[in-house]
Amino acid sequence: MIIIAERINASRKYIAQAIATRNAPFIQNEAKAQAQAGADYIDVNAGTFVGEEAQHLGWIIDVVQEVTDLPLCIDSPDPKVIAEVLPRVKRPPMINSITLEPARLEGILPLVLEAGAKVIALCQSQDSMAETADEKVRMAERLVEKSTRAGIPLEDIYIDPLVYPLATNTRSALETLEAIERIMKEFPGVHTVCGLTNVSHGLPARKLVNRTFLVAAITRGLDSAILDPTDKDLYAALKAVLMVMGKDEFCMNFITSYREGRLE
Amino acid sequence: MIIIAERINASRKYIAQAIATRNAPFIQNEAKAQAQAGADYIDVNAGTFVGEEAQHLGWIIDVVQEVTDLPLCIDSPDPKVIAEVLPRVKRPPMINSITLEPARLEGILPLVLEAGAKVIALCQSQDSMAETADEKVRMAERLVEKSTRAGIPLEDIYIDPLVYPLATNTRSALETLEAIERIMKEFPGVHTVCGLTNVSHGLPARKLVNRTFLVAAITRGLDSAILDPTDKDLYAALKAVLMVMGKDEFCMNFITSYREGRLE
Repeated sequence: MIIIAERINASRKYIAQAIATRNAPFIQNEAKAQAQAGADYIDVNAGTFVGEEAQHLGWIIDVVQEVTDLPLCIDSPDPKVIAEVLPRVKRPPMINSITLEPARLEGILPLVLEAGAKVIALCQSQDSMAETADEKVRMAERLVEKSTRAGIPLEDIYIDPLVYPLATNTRSALETLEAIERIMKEFPGVHTVCGLTNVSHGLPARKLVNRTFLVAAITRGLDSAILDPTDKDLYAALKAVLMVMGKDEFCMNFITSYREGRLE
Repeated sequence: MIIIAERINASRKYIAQAIATRNAPFIQNEAKAQAQAGADYIDVNAGTFVGEEAQHLGWIIDVVQEVTDLPLCIDSPDPKVIAEVLPRVKRPPMINSITLEPARLEGILPLVLEAGAKVIALCQSQDSMAETADEKVRMAERLVEKSTRAGIPLEDIYIDPLVYPLATNTRSALETLEAIERIMKEFPGVHTVCGLTNVSHGLPARKLVNRTFLVAAITRGLDSAILDPTDKDLYAALKAVLMVMGKDEFCMNFITSYREGRLE
């Protein structure tokens, strides 16, 4: 299971403030806490700083790399921003994300290739969202085709089928779960990834909904996720479902997490 | 989702004591609490009273039926005990359980038929436990064949593929999940049911493991479970996964549970 740690995102107010005030220790503590909590990638996002995104993202990249050897997940929809910050990135990163939107796809794929990066590919085009499992799988096919044709190995592609709020469509999680299962079967070697927060938008007890969706998605084949590894209940559910799914030899990972006090 | 409430079981010390001392209010409070918490059936078990099981089970049945209109789940492996207590049962019950063991199967099936009962059928024979999904599905086939041939409608059969402790076999949950999915596909109309406590035997944080397994099983098609509906974290996970799986129209059930303070 590959964990992309989501906390360093300018859409969070306290992160935006730390970026704006160049509060490096604050950002570095977020990076260290997530690394310690089990992150595989540290997502970095300065998307709310319109017109100044590259400058702020570059600063984040520098300060995060001072405190962790984990690879980064460069989170921007803008090929120009990604191109501008990539030279500062020390280890092959993940790039978050491409869609089927031509400018974004054609702008970002060469950067992915050049950086030897992994890439998150969203099941979304410029004129439609994929709401049903069928639509998600069709978009996944096109994303895989375009990415592999550009030279990106299947193993470096992380398909995000996207999940929409249950509050507006009670079938939305179900369609995503079906898409995950079908995508993993149809393209052996490809990865699936998902953010968790959309699914609970507009509902109460959001963290409960998010972690329940994560457990469901892993039972259907999801092998990476964008999440906050410092969320104890979420982390406990993650460790438990990996064990339930037979991915924890001798249950040692689960038992170790318990001994570290991380399961309650 | 059909919830079979498990608390009134003589293997629990305080229940055994209440049975032995004929503490009717105690047993009745357990029944009422589970009914209020959302039980569909109240399981009743006096299995630890060897040689006196029927007498004690009969008493439990009487006192529980005084306080709830919910149907009972008569929990005994012994056809004689079941035959003895059935006349006291007011509403068509569930009978828990048959296996492929001939004496148990042939003894209990006529009672199920006569009572118009539903029946839990365990994937287990006298000489083997079904450990792999293949074995579980094969046993399910034989249980379905024998039960329907005896005249029991498919809709009244609840197959329990059984789950063994993860601590002794890390694939045990996985095999059960695969069996659930295959059984539900192979016999449209049949139900699957599972107890949750076995899976976590020998592990720490057992309730976390149990509810994670429940969520996983529901995402693979499980449509009933033997559990404690008064366990708040378990109940919250159940409500969340039913919503995630598109089985909660307009999310109203989840939102109502939240308003009732049952989700945290």
